[in-house]
Amino acid sequence: MSDVARSAGVSIKTVSRVVNDESGVHPATAERVLAAIDRLGFRRNLSARNLRRGVGTGTLGLVLEDLANPFYSVLTRAVEEAARMQGKQVLTGSSDESSERERELVLEFCARRVDGLLVVPAGSQHGYIGHEMRAGTPVVFVDRPPGGLDADTVLIDNAGGAAQAARHLAGFGHREIAFLGDAPDIHTAAERVRGFREGCERAGVRFDPELVRMGPHTDESVAAALAGPLRRATALVAGNNRITVHVLRALSGRPDRPALVGFDDFELADLLDPPITVVTHDTWALGRSAAEALFARLDGDTSPPRRVVVPTRLLARGSGEVRI
Amino acid sequence: MSDVARSAGVSIKTVSRVVNDESGVHPATAERVLAAIDRLGFRRNLSARNLRRGVGTGTLGLVLEDLANPFYSVLTRAVEEAARMQGKQVLTGSSDESSERERELVLEFCARRVDGLLVVPAGSQHGYIGHEMRAGTPVVFVDRPPGGLDADTVLIDNAGGAAQAARHLAGFGHREIAFLGDAPDIHTAAERVRGFREGCERAGVRFDPELVRMGPHTDESVAAALAGPLRRATALVAGNNRITVHVLRALSGRPDRPALVGFDDFELADLLDPPITVVTHDTWALGRSAAEALFARLDGDTSPPRRVVVPTRLLARGSGEVRI
Repeated sequence: MSDVARSAGVSIKTVSRVVNDESGVHPATAERVLAAIDRLGFRRNLSARNLRRGVGTGTLGLVLEDLANPFYSVLTRAVEEAARMQGKQVLTGSSDESSERERELVLEFCARRVDGLLVVPAGSQHGYIGHEMRAGTPVVFVDRPPGGLDADTVLIDNAGGAAQAARHLAGFGHREIAFLGDAPDIHTAAERVRGFREGCERAGVRFDPELVRMGPHTDESVAAALAGPLRRATALVAGNNRITVHVLRALSGRPDRPALVGFDDFELADLLDPPITVVTHDTWALGRSAAEALFARLDGDTSPPRRVVVPTRLLARGSGEVRI
Repeated sequence: MSDVARSAGVSIKTVSRVVNDESGVHPATAERVLAAIDRLGFRRNLSARNLRRGVGTGTLGLVLEDLANPFYSVLTRAVEEAARMQGKQVLTGSSDESSERERELVLEFCARRVDGLLVVPAGSQHGYIGHEMRAGTPVVFVDRPPGGLDADTVLIDNAGGAAQAARHLAGFGHREIAFLGDAPDIHTAAERVRGFREGCERAGVRFDPELVRMGPHTDESVAAALAGPLRRATALVAGNNRITVHVLRALSGRPDRPALVGFDDFELADLLDPPITVVTHDTWALGRSAAEALFARLDGDTSPPRRVVVPTRLLARGSGEVRI
């Protein structure tokens, strides 16, 4: 510090003021000090400074399922953009649907004193996060609600979207509609199959548990599921973007392909033959809304936890519009 | 600290030893101290502790082009996994091909004292990073080399892959082969068109500059490029995963579709009609190699900068195997 003071021709107190962003320094003087810092090859140390000043680390933590899944990478990009507007950076971590890994990442991020956390839960019990929240780290849950904890949550309209898919297929005369979803302990999967059931019932189609399979998530297991009782279905709802891709691979070359609606849009869906009808939603809006909810808390909003639901929309492209 | 000592029934010195991971504390005692810390609701502050101890922040910075692009999200996931093995977390930032934003992100990450940086360069001048490197932050460049700076770089074999694409198409009798690539100031694009030219020449196909278009990167501009002089080409090499998708959209429904090889594999390429032949590479290996190069530097490796090249492979699926 004294080197900088000497080089800039100011007092150590002035250097300290500039470095700590305090008032009372003439802009031209401040610039001279910063130039001296640069000249002498010192590097700002934002982390240490922020921690010293108690203004936080300028970092958000984002725990999600798998960053390599396009749904999460778009979500992350949206959070990154929103964070940037607030001068914050984003730490990411993938849980791979492991509640243990989720917990590890959350605690690691908290130990690093992130200013706030966005969590796509893998586990179903989040009491352990309550401790961090009470200690002052705001947390917003994204895409799935927390278990055993009341906190801000931003979701998409899973049940509504799946109901829409069922009604759409029923509208083309289908009476045997299958649902192939993610593991039933995953909130989005449970909500989607619930919505699917409601949609069937409202359209006068019998909900047949034999036509529902939850959990397959590889090419092989999805192909096996489609070769079983689901084979008699004339139409199918695929529960998320990954499952839709597995379904397409399994059905490829099969002559008696069922009508298909996929939950989540995906790249190239419009270029397949037939183009794939999907339940779509604004993933970017999901990420942005979650980040905004977090910033509101960081700004001191102490109102009760809120739940935001991002709407879905059915995008008819061809695969679901097969009349029987 | 004294509350913890009292609650655990140990001296303040013992608490301090446990908190700072020093030796000389019996494991059972250490556990009692940690339990007391938990009980009293204190939170570890890794950032402050790491900074105090001079062991770094346990954070890596990753600057890339666009996290929402599947190529970069897989790359990021690979870096995340490699970092996790070393107990480090990853900060990400997207430059959107802006050299200014790249610089902003790099300096921001350095100011936060990341332990090391992985950079997919957007700009072509990286002298400014040299200052950070000399100040002690190791930097590895990924997918594109730095400009005006000698540093570790991990690339894919861009020229070799594009040459392979040209030779593959020439092997099916094509003599008018077009190339549609990214802006020519992007290293990967320049290397790919160079490799394409070499591949043509080695296969005895005349390289025709009229059949090369560099820069279009929207559905509209790609469609316009394909409607121009490129229309007479009987075969086409698309310079990256995004361009391939734009090309597919532009060609969709056109009766006289050229044979096509895309650089970069992409999801569903195998399910399109015809399935798309691509030049593929191991994106996961690219990310892991880059992270490993960085860890070697963090471990004290001071050998001269190295360049690692990840190989490519042509994956024939149908769209490139059209004999004329």
